[in-house]
Amino acid sequence: MSQRVKVKQILSDDKVQYDVTVKGWIRSFRNNQFIALNDGSTNNNLQIVIEPGTDAGLLKRLTTGAAISVTGEIIASLGKGQKVELKARELEVLGDCDPEKYPLQLKNRPSLEYLREIAHLRFRTNTFGAIFRVRHSLAFAVHQFFNERGFVYLHTPVITASDAEGAGEMFRVTTLDLNKPPRTESGDIDFKEDFFGRATNLTVSGQLEGELGAMAFGDIYTFGPTFRAENSNTARHLAEFWMIEPEMAFYDLEDNMNLAEAFIKYVIGYVLQHNREDLEFLAQRLAEEEKQKPQQERSEMGLLEKLEFVLNNEFMRLTYTEAIDILKNSKPNKSKKFNYLIEEWGADLQSEHERYLVEKHFKKPVILTDYPAAIKAFYMKQNEDGKTVRAMDILFPGIGEIVGGSQREENYDKLVKRMQELHLPTEELSWYLDTRRFGACPHAGFGLGFERLVLFVTGMGNIRDVIPFPRTPKSAEF
Amino acid sequence: MSQRVKVKQILSDDKVQYDVTVKGWIRSFRNNQFIALNDGSTNNNLQIVIEPGTDAGLLKRLTTGAAISVTGEIIASLGKGQKVELKARELEVLGDCDPEKYPLQLKNRPSLEYLREIAHLRFRTNTFGAIFRVRHSLAFAVHQFFNERGFVYLHTPVITASDAEGAGEMFRVTTLDLNKPPRTESGDIDFKEDFFGRATNLTVSGQLEGELGAMAFGDIYTFGPTFRAENSNTARHLAEFWMIEPEMAFYDLEDNMNLAEAFIKYVIGYVLQHNREDLEFLAQRLAEEEKQKPQQERSEMGLLEKLEFVLNNEFMRLTYTEAIDILKNSKPNKSKKFNYLIEEWGADLQSEHERYLVEKHFKKPVILTDYPAAIKAFYMKQNEDGKTVRAMDILFPGIGEIVGGSQREENYDKLVKRMQELHLPTEELSWYLDTRRFGACPHAGFGLGFERLVLFVTGMGNIRDVIPFPRTPKSAEF
Repeated sequence: MSQRVKVKQILSDDKVQYDVTVKGWIRSFRNNQFIALNDGSTNNNLQIVIEPGTDAGLLKRLTTGAAISVTGEIIASLGKGQKVELKARELEVLGDCDPEKYPLQLKNRPSLEYLREIAHLRFRTNTFGAIFRVRHSLAFAVHQFFNERGFVYLHTPVITASDAEGAGEMFRVTTLDLNKPPRTESGDIDFKEDFFGRATNLTVSGQLEGELGAMAFGDIYTFGPTFRAENSNTARHLAEFWMIEPEMAFYDLEDNMNLAEAFIKYVIGYVLQHNREDLEFLAQRLAEEEKQKPQQERSEMGLLEKLEFVLNNEFMRLTYTEAIDILKNSKPNKSKKFNYLIEEWGADLQSEHERYLVEKHFKKPVILTDYPAAIKAFYMKQNEDGKTVRAMDILFPGIGEIVGGSQREENYDKLVKRMQELHLPTEELSWYLDTRRFGACPHAGFGLGFERLVLFVTGMGNIRDVIPFPRTPKSAEF
Repeated sequence: MSQRVKVKQILSDDKVQYDVTVKGWIRSFRNNQFIALNDGSTNNNLQIVIEPGTDAGLLKRLTTGAAISVTGEIIASLGKGQKVELKARELEVLGDCDPEKYPLQLKNRPSLEYLREIAHLRFRTNTFGAIFRVRHSLAFAVHQFFNERGFVYLHTPVITASDAEGAGEMFRVTTLDLNKPPRTESGDIDFKEDFFGRATNLTVSGQLEGELGAMAFGDIYTFGPTFRAENSNTARHLAEFWMIEPEMAFYDLEDNMNLAEAFIKYVIGYVLQHNREDLEFLAQRLAEEEKQKPQQERSEMGLLEKLEFVLNNEFMRLTYTEAIDILKNSKPNKSKKFNYLIEEWGADLQSEHERYLVEKHFKKPVILTDYPAAIKAFYMKQNEDGKTVRAMDILFPGIGEIVGGSQREENYDKLVKRMQELHLPTEELSWYLDTRRFGACPHAGFGLGFERLVLFVTGMGNIRDVIPFPRTPKSAEF
């Protein structure tokens, strides 16, 4: 018996005249002779040539979606589009696929919306095959980047009793009987009876715990699921998403920006190198989608050009204050085209402003720093101006904010004072404040929403198409 | 100014006579002259020699736990235990650490139990530094192993509407007001009003979703948090833990066993190569702990020997039926020393039986296969004997079950029949059953509890010591 070999390996070798067994699923079968076989190892199919005179009963079972095992010889292909093909000697149908019932037929090319409804099958399409192989490579590149630099991967908890960070609405986690929850004498829900002996939620960020790790290991990162119970039904929001949060002792804001920029370039460079075929397919898909749009809405660059551009250009760095000046004097602000006009310093930037800066003004990724304290989180390092904090947001074309980070306030007194101003419970976060009591040091970190990165790299338009089984308001299928 | 260099690099180089800046935390300061500095990059400290005549006010601030920055020259060390040391020229205290309040003093060596209470600081000890660097390396090795073999890393959902798998008790996830939940006309909780429009829980396994991926990509794996709302207050159970679940199309049970064994050996080999110092430290710790035990309870091998042993020996493979024969005729069964005596075929194996097989009888890791269907999950492939299923459990010394897996039942009719016997809702799992309707194929997979692996590799005794912030009944600190 010959060994099973994956299609990717057969196609990347130039070898011919050897025996293999391949196993996979039929993408198409034409002229009662040519099977296009896909086994998920690559977007490309292996052409299999069936012997003339094959049993008619067997031929009938060679339908799109059927699982087969084929043994034969790899030979040079005379057809277009492939160098080699497999001349079948033995063919076995492992699992039939009824063409009357199978939703994925080549003829009626399904829409992305429809494929979301059958997300359990959409991996089997070229588009989603490419997306999730790219997602895999990005995830691996994340780990490799940090591992090479001596960062420790820290699994921060998903279930948390802390709800003090205020990064967003939280999901409650409980084993109480919702129908008849235990109550205290005063009639409140008695969370002492709950599984953890207190009220618990799903985490909105691993940062605070990450800082605890950084104060021991120097450099750590998290990469895990994160949750927002926000009723945002947009193409950019998920209730469950994966976040990467590195945290570095002895880093200031500039070190932080340097790391974030190097990190993004590394992972993009990685997929450009390792997933060329998938990206070329996705670039083609995007180009076709763009053709449906009016001329002025089409993007100037193709997907691959856009990725190369990010890789080869320095991100523009400027302060919030400088950005406000640019926006105030911008054409859309003067002609009142912005929905939210920029009138004074202190305004929170909306997506339209971020996109103007990135897509119109600078035409490259932008890092904005030193935001007003009032619109940023309590833990950010306070500048000496008494107004701004050492925050940084990285803004990407088409995506908006892809990274949010800051140098952290390491001064115990300043941090406590800020928490008190915001009515945050210092006692409940005493473990966090301990990092400022015992061997505090300048430190910084950032968070990157993994799906936003995958969106950017794949050129997809809806975040629900870059996570296997999206969780959104009123939807938790599969 | 000289560049900041990490301690690990300085100690692994043999170079001397060059300038560096180091930043880290003081582990000890003796004779008003020698600082042991740790920056988390390695368990080993860098010795820093302070110039005589250093300001007394500064000397007083050089306490255990303080964060400092030191610039000077790396020179050959005359002292024992290190090849090089840093002759300080400039020294700055970045963050003080009050010795009256800091809980981690070298003098009073804290117990593991006490360190669990201050888990936010325990990373700063040698033991937990080593444990979490090893945990990091194991996690990286997991990704590298699967990436090298072309597996796709699939992020299966944490929040799930499915509670059909029956792998364990689940946590409810909700945004309903527990105090006054909306109710239907008949008085039940109205989950239509909940965030996802239905009742949702935290996942107990990503396997079912993983199988969907395997039917497209061939080989996939998951590596994410998993939950059990079980009131198990043991040294082996967590309410939140990380699980690795590979799933492979076209694999039978033997392929599955081969992969699992290769996988475990790969990740252990990886840490033996990359974390030698951490493992040596942990081996020393374990040896000291063992000395406290009575002679007959001590393990025959040290930690490193045990890891090398697993690496260099084939796992013993036998069927459940063969194991029952061995156990029935074993000394502890005949002399009634087992708490649960093995009387007949069909008995569920307890920890004492697994340990007997692994630690006494075979003295090596064991893979048990072909368990009675009655004690295994619904999705396992049914053997032709009508009694057993193609299950496999890998049993490890000191740990018990470290891997559970099976070949899956790919026959639609057989699977549905089994689900009906167990009163599982086939309609709710129709998406899962679709894998058996459209291009089904033989496939297999397994799950490995990551913390059990970390326990084994670090030689620690309590699973709460190998995850950063353990979640257990009545405890969700930090």
